[in-house]
Amino acid sequence: MRIVYAVPGPMSKTALGSAELRRRQELLQRWAPEGVEVTVQNVLSGPASIESAYEEHVSVEQTARLVTRLEAEGADAIILGCYGDPGLDALCELTERAVVVGPGAASAHLAAMLGHRFGIVTVADGVVHPLRRLVADAGLAGSLAGIAVVDVPVLELGTDREASALRAADAGRRLIERDGADVLVLGCMSMAFLELDADLRAKLGVPVLNPVKAALAIAHARALFGWRHSKTAYPTPRKLAAGATLDDLVVG
Amino acid sequence: MRIVYAVPGPMSKTALGSAELRRRQELLQRWAPEGVEVTVQNVLSGPASIESAYEEHVSVEQTARLVTRLEAEGADAIILGCYGDPGLDALCELTERAVVVGPGAASAHLAAMLGHRFGIVTVADGVVHPLRRLVADAGLAGSLAGIAVVDVPVLELGTDREASALRAADAGRRLIERDGADVLVLGCMSMAFLELDADLRAKLGVPVLNPVKAALAIAHARALFGWRHSKTAYPTPRKLAAGATLDDLVVG
Amino acid sequence: MRIVYAVPGPMSKTALGSAELRRRQELLQRWAPEGVEVTVQNVLSGPASIESAYEEHVSVEQTARLVTRLEAEGADAIILGCYGDPGLDALCELTERAVVVGPGAASAHLAAMLGHRFGIVTVADGVVHPLRRLVADAGLAGSLAGIAVVDVPVLELGTDREASALRAADAGRRLIERDGADVLVLGCMSMAFLELDADLRAKLGVPVLNPVKAALAIAHARALFGWRHSKTAYPTPRKLAAGATLDDLVVG
Amino acid sequence: MRIVYAVPGPMSKTALGSAELRRRQELLQRWAPEGVEVTVQNVLSGPASIESAYEEHVSVEQTARLVTRLEAEGADAIILGCYGDPGLDALCELTERAVVVGPGAASAHLAAMLGHRFGIVTVADGVVHPLRRLVADAGLAGSLAGIAVVDVPVLELGTDREASALRAADAGRRLIERDGADVLVLGCMSMAFLELDADLRAKLGVPVLNPVKAALAIAHARALFGWRHSKTAYPTPRKLAAGATLDDLVVG
Amino acid sequence: MRIVYAVPGPMSKTALGSAELRRRQELLQRWAPEGVEVTVQNVLSGPASIESAYEEHVSVEQTARLVTRLEAEGADAIILGCYGDPGLDALCELTERAVVVGPGAASAHLAAMLGHRFGIVTVADGVVHPLRRLVADAGLAGSLAGIAVVDVPVLELGTDREASALRAADAGRRLIERDGADVLVLGCMSMAFLELDADLRAKLGVPVLNPVKAALAIAHARALFGWRHSKTAYPTPRKLAAGATLDDLVVG
Amino acid sequence: MRIVYAVPGPMSKTALGSAELRRRQELLQRWAPEGVEVTVQNVLSGPASIESAYEEHVSVEQTARLVTRLEAEGADAIILGCYGDPGLDALCELTERAVVVGPGAASAHLAAMLGHRFGIVTVADGVVHPLRRLVADAGLAGSLAGIAVVDVPVLELGTDREASALRAADAGRRLIERDGADVLVLGCMSMAFLELDADLRAKLGVPVLNPVKAALAIAHARALFGWRHSKTAYPTPRKLAAGATLDDLVVG
Repeated sequence: MRIVYAVPGPMSKTALGSAELRRRQELLQRWAPEGVEVTVQNVLSGPASIESAYEEHVSVEQTARLVTRLEAEGADAIILGCYGDPGLDALCELTERAVVVGPGAASAHLAAMLGHRFGIVTVADGVVHPLRRLVADAGLAGSLAGIAVVDVPVLELGTDREASALRAADAGRRLIERDGADVLVLGCMSMAFLELDADLRAKLGVPVLNPVKAALAIAHARALFGWRHSKTAYPTPRKLAAGATLDDLVVG
Repeated sequence: MRIVYAVPGPMSKTALGSAELRRRQELLQRWAPEGVEVTVQNVLSGPASIESAYEEHVSVEQTARLVTRLEAEGADAIILGCYGDPGLDALCELTERAVVVGPGAASAHLAAMLGHRFGIVTVADGVVHPLRRLVADAGLAGSLAGIAVVDVPVLELGTDREASALRAADAGRRLIERDGADVLVLGCMSMAFLELDADLRAKLGVPVLNPVKAALAIAHARALFGWRHSKTAYPTPRKLAAGATLDDLVVG
Repeated sequence: MRIVYAVPGPMSKTALGSAELRRRQELLQRWAPEGVEVTVQNVLSGPASIESAYEEHVSVEQTARLVTRLEAEGADAIILGCYGDPGLDALCELTERAVVVGPGAASAHLAAMLGHRFGIVTVADGVVHPLRRLVADAGLAGSLAGIAVVDVPVLELGTDREASALRAADAGRRLIERDGADVLVLGCMSMAFLELDADLRAKLGVPVLNPVKAALAIAHARALFGWRHSKTAYPTPRKLAAGATLDDLVVG
Repeated sequence: MRIVYAVPGPMSKTALGSAELRRRQELLQRWAPEGVEVTVQNVLSGPASIESAYEEHVSVEQTARLVTRLEAEGADAIILGCYGDPGLDALCELTERAVVVGPGAASAHLAAMLGHRFGIVTVADGVVHPLRRLVADAGLAGSLAGIAVVDVPVLELGTDREASALRAADAGRRLIERDGADVLVLGCMSMAFLELDADLRAKLGVPVLNPVKAALAIAHARALFGWRHSKTAYPTPRKLAAGATLDDLVVG
Repeated sequence: MRIVYAVPGPMSKTALGSAELRRRQELLQRWAPEGVEVTVQNVLSGPASIESAYEEHVSVEQTARLVTRLEAEGADAIILGCYGDPGLDALCELTERAVVVGPGAASAHLAAMLGHRFGIVTVADGVVHPLRRLVADAGLAGSLAGIAVVDVPVLELGTDREASALRAADAGRRLIERDGADVLVLGCMSMAFLELDADLRAKLGVPVLNPVKAALAIAHARALFGWRHSKTAYPTPRKLAAGATLDDLVVG
Repeated sequence: MRIVYAVPGPMSKTALGSAELRRRQELLQRWAPEGVEVTVQNVLSGPASIESAYEEHVSVEQTARLVTRLEAEGADAIILGCYGDPGLDALCELTERAVVVGPGAASAHLAAMLGHRFGIVTVADGVVHPLRRLVADAGLAGSLAGIAVVDVPVLELGTDREASALRAADAGRRLIERDGADVLVLGCMSMAFLELDADLRAKLGVPVLNPVKAALAIAHARALFGWRHSKTAYPTPRKLAAGATLDDLVVG
């Protein structure tokens, strides 16, 4: 089974660079279920990191081109490599055969299976409302205990892993003690690739979901069992159904 | 007061062309409250019409550039010229002084003031779920009776006004009789600029909201009274707050 | 356009007296959109102020007589001059041509357009639950962060404006910090006519809605565009439809 | 135990007259639990019947005077004699020792104990929305399958009992078959005093609640066990707490 | 009228023993409305106390045998003697003529009639989520302010009544002050038979419901008026309807 | 990885017998992800099939003994072999290391990831309300379009596979056309082991989830990534935590 982790920003062109892409691919391959080959690809232009609704929207066009190309090339499943699932609805409209998985929705549903109310630890005030919408659109608003922000820019998270882990634990503790969370989700891919989930579980005593692993798990299961998204729910855009290409959709 | 109606697609480059832009500007100016000057502007590149979630996302980047320029040029209020309010959350992040109004949210709130449950008459299966999300995000999911689709491509709506009016009335009648709607909203700007609201009200006996007029009303009121959006709710993206420009946000 | 602000209590007969009515009319006229003439009228008997559900109900009969007379006299729109919208449902049943606006519903819907969750600052424990019902009936229960009470009798609010402003700011701060409000609404007409909205916005940094201005804005827009309430939602009482008068409805 | 059934309209002055009051008292006494003495009293002025929100509000002032007098005279419990519980919130504000019961809320809660979703059979379009609010305010919106209207004026219901029973059964059947109701409630006191509950249960095979019996049951239980309403939930109006009388509350 | 209080655990075989059963029967008889004879019966095998979801499920089989026997023997109403209503849905499936009452649902509905939001004081972390489900299944999730745990094993509650009362009052105070409860419910039968309701009401100033009295009240009312549960809502299990016995349902 | 499919009824002692258990084990093994060994075990006493809430409760005690034994013997994950997840809450209380998966919750969450609203096709009126509770307890009430019943006794489903498939397709079509489902779930294990999912998808054009495969997928993922249930959400029963055994919990 071939799963592609599609990064909706040009990470290879940022300070993190190709080394980080490779590091992530190694982790993904290490985490993947048996029989799965994971590769990482990023778009060549887009936001360096996604910390606002604006950056979410802006990432969609290039990501759509990457995802439709990956489907055409035969990928079994594609993981949208950003916790906020930017444009997942659009990607489902544009694809039919390939499984497309958003880590945000995948981890929210898994979290709801592990307890009664989950909390999300994330990294920017600017995504709190977008994440709340994500959970509501997944149908799980009633299972969300809260969202806590660790105030570190995404791009600086990895420079001091220990400090980041401590601040994430503080945020998680607030969610448990004040908001009644009994499960936590890491709400940011950079945290996920720092593997803060194990730290937090050890410190806080509740299950902590890593959204990358959650997306891998759901991508694998859906591809294995042929569970594609409903085209009744996500119809192909009328112009594409009538024969237009993605290029034709944008005029001017 | 200067209000700009910002079309998130390059209408001037489509078959409708500049003539339609002028026609819409005339209607807007005719409908506008006293003391308001309305102009119409469109982006120079983007989707020809917005009939899917994908086209919504894709429209945001150019619209954001137009809207931030309009704010810088001193517009008092900007109406996002598409019923589905594509990227309204992002536009609120990027602006602070100018009022930014989405016709979808504006007409949903006005509809909720006129009755108990409203229905939306729209034009494409592909926007039903995005519109449902829009209403839910406005906090009004419980006031939505339903969404009915008139199966005509947006770009053909105006070619046979009478046929379009009849089909819209059929859809409205279903919403009233089967779903219990007591107020209707036209869920598409092309319908709005055909002024189908008066036809439907006469035929169906319930209030029918034209989203263009709804957006004009809310834009005028908010600019008059200085009701800007909450920056606590829509914080400026971290990189912009730190001095970056919109150009800097997109890499590659 | 003629808008009448109908006070559902006999203010002219209280200590505040006609002077306060005139002061309010001047403010209303100053705030009104271009082309609008606003007059103030009060009922000649009823509660001196409305600080409980009981006083709300008791105000309705005289207010209904005033409002139906104003409609008959050609008013374009009538604003119910009490934040709690007492009897708004009944007034919609009794009218058809004139626009009738409740400041509570109007400001709740406008607040929901400015952010994600709004808080209400009001003046009596006795209206907290009635206001919660008002917001729920407007369909916006999910957008209400909370209601905070400034413990000052309505009729003493204006005697020490600075003290009132400070206490209102404390209440607003609690709504923001503890309950997560990102927009505030003044939940009392006396606060509104003290123009505490500007003070609070300056002190607290979030949008603050003045319900009098909100009602003016919605009344103007609805009258301008002909958006009357749905008679399907608010049917004329059966006896009136059969020819009875308001006098006939009350026996004994 | 002394329970008073307080009719919020001057029935003794209508065509139904004192004979109907006596007939209702006899039924109430026959239905009452052991040890209960029930008397019927009506207000001397107010709406002849309550078929709209307007008539609900207008009934409150006189009913409040009756109810507070009954409390002062030592009644153990007072049943508000109208299905729609008009002004129940206000009556709870004004009383403290006596139990005050609304048949609408009482029967909604009992219905919810007998099945999963209940339907209400009522008699006027004008009360559908007020009843929906009543159920929502009781916290039971999610348990309401629907409300069906038997189109007969309240005051004519009793003139042809068989015809009324047939039409009520039709309405009940719609609620069961189309809306999924598994319990029914008679939503009108005139139907209740026609004892249509037995007819409907026999015809439709689901439990049917008579709101008069429901109110009797709850009044008896609450008086027996001393379950008064929460004064935290229904605080005494500030002016009354400070020593004013009901008369003082209305000026002019 | 004959009401049986059916204890779903073998209390007679525990340390509390038959003396406690007799003490409870005396209290029940003392509390019962006029004309009611109450007896207490317990199952002969099952959990010693119910402090977890597991113990709830395990109690159902023996309780079902007891309840169906009591129905066959002519009991008018049966109270399920555990606050959490374990297996109430199943008992409604298995019975048709007898009224079956759960104290949890009964007290939740009565609490909702006394105020706006109620809190539950209970005795074990292990029942918090089952109680939350119980309230949600009663349709009242929106009326639940919270659940507070007094950390005392059920079987030790009665050994130091004063200490238990103090700790229950602390829990109740938290529900009022932090969670906004305006009515309390004792969420455990051992607390109920200690009559902690009077203590708490005196200390905290809000109504406090004793679930045993609540169940008595509802059982009496339902038996008196013939309000049986809906067999549409709780259909007889298919095998029983086809002639099988309870014994036949369990194989092996 | 060792996954055990634990059947909560003594299938080996019914007409289906050990042959059916073997057939199911073969299918499970065929469907399982790479690296997974699946075995099937059933309890030795309990309901022959589960078609009511009563049968659900009755199955829990023996299933708990089986599941805790399987955990002690080192099973990585245990699938509760009944669509309605009977006693899943209790099984989570009793286990800590092993993953325990309910097919009902697992398939509901997966269904919610494939579309906007899912429908359940099941086989007995008696489980409709238990299934509705299951979905609500999973937090997904708002994503459930409806539940449709194929009126065939569970134990006869397999005797005419074609007829069962046709009736299931009729039920699925009703869910899609009348209730707006865009994804379907087979709500019964017997349907699942008939592999009706492929038939239905072909006939109806929407994704159809097989709950056995859903449970396998989630069990595999959770065991692989170590996602155990939250002991904060599902605390160990107090008596067990204090050293008692399952045997000790049942007295008499």
